[in-house]
Amino acid sequence: MHSFYIPELVDSDTTQKLSDEESLHACKVLRLQSGVKIRVFNGKGLSAIAEIDFIHPKNTSIIISEKPYFEELKYELHIAIAPTKMNERMEWFVEKATEIGATTITFINCHNSERKQINIERFRRIALAAVKQSQRLNLPLINDLTSFQSFCELHKDGFIAHCYNQEKIAFSQIETITNATILIGPEGDFSKEEVDLALKYGYKGLSLGSNRLRTETAGIVAVTQFMQHILN
Amino acid sequence: MHSFYIPELVDSDTTQKLSDEESLHACKVLRLQSGVKIRVFNGKGLSAIAEIDFIHPKNTSIIISEKPYFEELKYELHIAIAPTKMNERMEWFVEKATEIGATTITFINCHNSERKQINIERFRRIALAAVKQSQRLNLPLINDLTSFQSFCELHKDGFIAHCYNQEKIAFSQIETITNATILIGPEGDFSKEEVDLALKYGYKGLSLGSNRLRTETAGIVAVTQFMQHILN
Repeated sequence: MHSFYIPELVDSDTTQKLSDEESLHACKVLRLQSGVKIRVFNGKGLSAIAEIDFIHPKNTSIIISEKPYFEELKYELHIAIAPTKMNERMEWFVEKATEIGATTITFINCHNSERKQINIERFRRIALAAVKQSQRLNLPLINDLTSFQSFCELHKDGFIAHCYNQEKIAFSQIETITNATILIGPEGDFSKEEVDLALKYGYKGLSLGSNRLRTETAGIVAVTQFMQHILN
Repeated sequence: MHSFYIPELVDSDTTQKLSDEESLHACKVLRLQSGVKIRVFNGKGLSAIAEIDFIHPKNTSIIISEKPYFEELKYELHIAIAPTKMNERMEWFVEKATEIGATTITFINCHNSERKQINIERFRRIALAAVKQSQRLNLPLINDLTSFQSFCELHKDGFIAHCYNQEKIAFSQIETITNATILIGPEGDFSKEEVDLALKYGYKGLSLGSNRLRTETAGIVAVTQFMQHILN
């Protein structure tokens, strides 16, 4: 069953419309017909089974055929990551982090960052496609580039994954937590000053294991380890 | 420091030669000079610091400058995975699985497999690059396509990650094990017959969490979860 994103969907809806973009996709790419069953979701936990009433490339209307289902998100995982030089490595990070369970992704500008500009809309489209593919009910929030310092000021008491030889903890060593912010550094790591700054804001050094990981791999490993941690 | 792969390297070596390929890379791409310090490794746990004695695109000789270091591998993680339709998804699986810690990767032909041919040499080159990048001392073994049934006959008592609604366990629920074989199915999952066959050969159903994951994502999640498991 195909999935369509309707951010305005609420629990009491009995009919709805697909956006221009989703209408075009349903009509011209998937070539769906009236009467076809689809799945719609609002990206904030609510989903419903619906039937296409009228199909049109710009204006598709649907009838909600079963009472919508709401699933409350039981955790929050915010990954703040420095974009890599090769953009496609970030693209797959966004896809995989979404599939596995990140709830917010923020791009951060660090001292050693090699890329200072990103195409945030493209990352949002990738996250939406990954949410549909994995049938997650929550669409991660994707935030534009912000400076390392502003991010730490705004989001205190998280974890910072770095390669310096100083005190770090692993998720396996701590009591189960259901909210975490994790900082993932650029190629060439965070600067020592950035690590110190994060510690001042209540961050703890995070160990992701003994292997040296690329930025995007560290991001995926952090998401996976956190998801395994909350299952324990 | 740049890393070079010398499969013939042994503990007692005081000098060595780089292969044609590595010599060309050192000479023409990296433009290294005599006297430069490099790191050499045999992919089976042994590494050493060396100095370039004579540089030549086909025949570079080195002097081992410090006693080689041997690190015994304390676990075995064999991932058997059905290649995805899009080859680049398998390429990044091989890169990431190598960085994170897989020790053997075997490609398997399944009932729902969409790809029946792979370029094994390309995957081996990707694994070698990832080992160098992550400074792992062990190069994963990359095995060519084999049938699902032959694989299960040869490697009994592993784990099979599938989406059927039947008994499964998670790594967090079992006592620490240091050797595991994990089967990851194709797009469209294993067939019910394949799951039953695996169970007959002593496999256990493996849960990787509640989200529906793409083949290559499931592979990465399995490697990460196993690596976290053996740290506990």
